[in-house]
Amino acid sequence: MNADKIPDIIIGRLPIYLRALQRMSEKGKKTTSSQELGENVGISAAQIRKDISQFGEFGKQGTGYSIAFLMDKLREILKVHRMWEVAIVGVGDIGHALARYQGFKDRGFQVVMIFDSDSSKIGQKVGEYTIEDASKMVERIRTEKVKLAMVTVPASTAQEVADKLVQAGIKAILNYAPTSINVPKNVRVQYIDPATHLQRMTYYLD
Amino acid sequence: MNADKIPDIIIGRLPIYLRALQRMSEKGKKTTSSQELGENVGISAAQIRKDISQFGEFGKQGTGYSIAFLMDKLREILKVHRMWEVAIVGVGDIGHALARYQGFKDRGFQVVMIFDSDSSKIGQKVGEYTIEDASKMVERIRTEKVKLAMVTVPASTAQEVADKLVQAGIKAILNYAPTSINVPKNVRVQYIDPATHLQRMTYYLD
Repeated sequence: MNADKIPDIIIGRLPIYLRALQRMSEKGKKTTSSQELGENVGISAAQIRKDISQFGEFGKQGTGYSIAFLMDKLREILKVHRMWEVAIVGVGDIGHALARYQGFKDRGFQVVMIFDSDSSKIGQKVGEYTIEDASKMVERIRTEKVKLAMVTVPASTAQEVADKLVQAGIKAILNYAPTSINVPKNVRVQYIDPATHLQRMTYYLD
Repeated sequence: MNADKIPDIIIGRLPIYLRALQRMSEKGKKTTSSQELGENVGISAAQIRKDISQFGEFGKQGTGYSIAFLMDKLREILKVHRMWEVAIVGVGDIGHALARYQGFKDRGFQVVMIFDSDSSKIGQKVGEYTIEDASKMVERIRTEKVKLAMVTVPASTAQEVADKLVQAGIKAILNYAPTSINVPKNVRVQYIDPATHLQRMTYYLD
């Protein structure tokens, strides 16, 4: 299997399958079918079988998928069978919420440092973290070899922050700032912007 | 132009173009090209021209796009030339952040009511809003004819909340709960789940 050969749209569905399987598992379920999983996530059973078969034969005709086994495989494929350290840049409302969010750890992520440039915030505690000085960010991230960052700064400073993160060796940015950012080809960016998501839906409304 | 005929993947890119145009306009720019817009959002100029031409001829060979005109057209297409009222259900950290977020109004959205089922929260103020009793939610939403909701409740109650929202006449849900929800075909759902977005990127990392 070659990372370059699987379409990104398929990769994007795998975390959704994994999340649904995790919920089934929490409820004590042991096996599932592509039908059941499909009803759960709103994707056709055929699409799910096709997506999963890209990576091997993980189910059995008639008996379906072992939830634990398929979760293991998906975690391996998505590389979240290990724990990834994540930095948060910008500790406003959203940064606060992310620093206190309990849902990362069982999905492969651990926040390890949070930064802000506001001197009145530096040194303050948020959950278990102490807000660090953003001017030390590049050095700190580089020293700790952190590869992922969540950016929750205003749109006006997002590009500057992204440039510094790239300089620090960050390879994946989850950008909450409501603006596009430019990064080198070897750095991934995903966007979370509620207004963009809402606008994508209003198109279909009367 | 027929809403059913434009692929959803194109619709999904329009809010991104609109956001970039809005940022250019704030900086005082009057015109842009598909090249410039493309560099801004990380999408090829050819793709942008193709996407926009689905809806008409909005640019001129050689002179490019008038930013104000293209913004008007995109707002019309996405139906955000009007203001949409939005309800927030669940006032934890994320609900708080959304209720206080200043970036909705100039993009077509206004939060009009926020709900929680925790009696210790009901009646409290968050920004300009007073937290309302979730048990009155269906009636309140139906009376005010609100069509959009953002759901920031725990995964365990997300489906129950979604069912009530559908009952209340909500047609589009932005779901922050880390779980899939099932709704009738005439209701749209978009998901915001940071762990899912991060997992989509770790696939590509070493």
